[in-house]
Amino acid sequence: MEKDEMTQEMEHYQRIVRAFLYYRIHSLKRVNQARRCFTSLSKEDQQLAPKFTTKLDLIKMAIGVNYDFIRTILQRTQNLFLNSEIYQMDEVISSVYIKLTYLISTVPEFDMEKVKSTIKQFVRDWSKEGEKERNTCYLPIINEILRLFPRDDIQPNAINILVPGAGLGRLAFEIVKLGYNCQGNEISLYMLITSNFILNNCTTTEQYVIYPWVHQYCNIAGFDDQVRNIKIPDMAPSEIPKDTSFSMCAGDFLLVYNDPGKKWDCVATCFFIDTAHSIIAYIKKIYQILKPGGYWINLGPLLYHFADMAGEQSLELSYEEVKTVIENVGFSYEKEEKGIVSGYTQDPSSLMTTLYHNIFFIVRKPEIDQQQ
Amino acid sequence: MEKDEMTQEMEHYQRIVRAFLYYRIHSLKRVNQARRCFTSLSKEDQQLAPKFTTKLDLIKMAIGVNYDFIRTILQRTQNLFLNSEIYQMDEVISSVYIKLTYLISTVPEFDMEKVKSTIKQFVRDWSKEGEKERNTCYLPIINEILRLFPRDDIQPNAINILVPGAGLGRLAFEIVKLGYNCQGNEISLYMLITSNFILNNCTTTEQYVIYPWVHQYCNIAGFDDQVRNIKIPDMAPSEIPKDTSFSMCAGDFLLVYNDPGKKWDCVATCFFIDTAHSIIAYIKKIYQILKPGGYWINLGPLLYHFADMAGEQSLELSYEEVKTVIENVGFSYEKEEKGIVSGYTQDPSSLMTTLYHNIFFIVRKPEIDQQQ
Repeated sequence: MEKDEMTQEMEHYQRIVRAFLYYRIHSLKRVNQARRCFTSLSKEDQQLAPKFTTKLDLIKMAIGVNYDFIRTILQRTQNLFLNSEIYQMDEVISSVYIKLTYLISTVPEFDMEKVKSTIKQFVRDWSKEGEKERNTCYLPIINEILRLFPRDDIQPNAINILVPGAGLGRLAFEIVKLGYNCQGNEISLYMLITSNFILNNCTTTEQYVIYPWVHQYCNIAGFDDQVRNIKIPDMAPSEIPKDTSFSMCAGDFLLVYNDPGKKWDCVATCFFIDTAHSIIAYIKKIYQILKPGGYWINLGPLLYHFADMAGEQSLELSYEEVKTVIENVGFSYEKEEKGIVSGYTQDPSSLMTTLYHNIFFIVRKPEIDQQQ
Repeated sequence: MEKDEMTQEMEHYQRIVRAFLYYRIHSLKRVNQARRCFTSLSKEDQQLAPKFTTKLDLIKMAIGVNYDFIRTILQRTQNLFLNSEIYQMDEVISSVYIKLTYLISTVPEFDMEKVKSTIKQFVRDWSKEGEKERNTCYLPIINEILRLFPRDDIQPNAINILVPGAGLGRLAFEIVKLGYNCQGNEISLYMLITSNFILNNCTTTEQYVIYPWVHQYCNIAGFDDQVRNIKIPDMAPSEIPKDTSFSMCAGDFLLVYNDPGKKWDCVATCFFIDTAHSIIAYIKKIYQILKPGGYWINLGPLLYHFADMAGEQSLELSYEEVKTVIENVGFSYEKEEKGIVSGYTQDPSSLMTTLYHNIFFIVRKPEIDQQQ
């Protein structure tokens, strides 16, 4: 790695750590804003909602608990990355702490949204409350893996499955638990730091308590909904069968899979393909890294992560166009199901629900590749 | 009206007209951005999605049709407002046209979102495609009005019903069609200009064609979904019974209803109460303007329009807290139903759906008011 690249990576890492550390100040600012709005009302109006400030005190307490959890995650992040000598976490944390008051204005709102969505990701991947969402999104993929690579006929640990966009690692973990080899790939340091923590440091179920919904001030039904907690993980991630290989690979999916000698039996993508600048590049890459006869299983919507983001390339295709690209690249459709309805880190008690009508498909690379 | 106030109002009006007129340029910029992204791909990648630029041409055509419709609306807006002498639309349009090239940078993204959501509002209020959404949101309110003020026992045109947040006027129109007197109140000039057009200028059904979904580039299933059109109105708004009074009142709900001599039999709010800076102020105002024994019927979520909007006061109460305020103000609950699920200007073909679990209630002001 070049020195410049190392410096850049270090700066990026520090930016993420800074965002995590800024969580408490940022979230309390929002509470204080709500308090200021309330106390600016007339005394008469305030008396009409007498428990409002009590709720804000509870929110403050919940933010404190989330922050302690974030600190625990950061403390376990030492030596996580290849060039660990530059990631002396204690030093980073201390230096960041010292500088924090100067740096507050440099933590963009965008980064804080990432921190808050990382907290919600725990619910999706590692809580009892997330089970319904997981069953809708991960089970169809897992069932197809079991059908395509039946464990009665095939040694599962002879099968190599790649999960790009692995997030907090639950889908990859479930695949490994069945005995297959699995690698998760993830670009987001928020996710990598957090999945490292959950996969390598959580030894018992319900070890931690977090308040994932505490930042939602709108569409709340009852007083307690905003300040209810969840316990994580629902399952200790240490239960992995022997003789399987489980790894996480950090980096951009398009850049890190370039070894022509390493091909996959199966690529499983869940809420991933619309994170590309060009979905065409993703589709071609998946084709390229699969073995002849290999399968690509996909479930998710077409939200397009970079759509309308200033200065970012974003190619938005309809599903019909995506399908054309998939077929033109050389894949053949084995299965297609539309309208599998699921949320994504959805608060089940919110008065507002965002649902995705997911596209689910299995496509196959030909045994004899015409194009290679 | 003070001169300064008149100038301010004129400037506000011109801002809205400017946003409407900027629609075409703004929307075509987005198309060109998509085209640039596509043509920056390699020739090989472009050939994998061969119909992409054809779709963009169709989108351009659809934007042109929408723009012609906007121009028609603006041309019918002359003499709409009280002080019509300052609203010489032709002059405004001409002067705005001349200045438009200089003014482009002054039309904020926020205003353009309003223009695009106004177009979608037509689907909700005045199209066949919006019928399902209307039945979920408006029918429960209308049925309760018929139950509370039965037309066999009461002269309906002796009953005065107010609809704050009237939008494009369909709910108010439906109430008037049943013979009740109804006034819609609306603060948004986007809505006022457009509801004036639909209520006073549309004489036949399906008179106009618009492309409401043309600005959604994400979560599209099929090639044609983004460029499909709808016809409006589904019903000619001229069919109003004689001897009823139907009016629209422009302005801030908290400021315009101050006549102590004018009280209402019923206030019907649909997706309105969360548009307040302080929902407490709205609740108190509704109580104040109702006759003793009068009813407030509400359906909608608690999204809170001003939440997290920079520099804006926003009081976000949970429904439980809202209910406490309603009761503390002096209302008594007659009916309450939670979880009436509906969209709001939701594209039914989108792969992403936002649903609201609406709160529906009827509360009553006491016959003998303890507090007055």
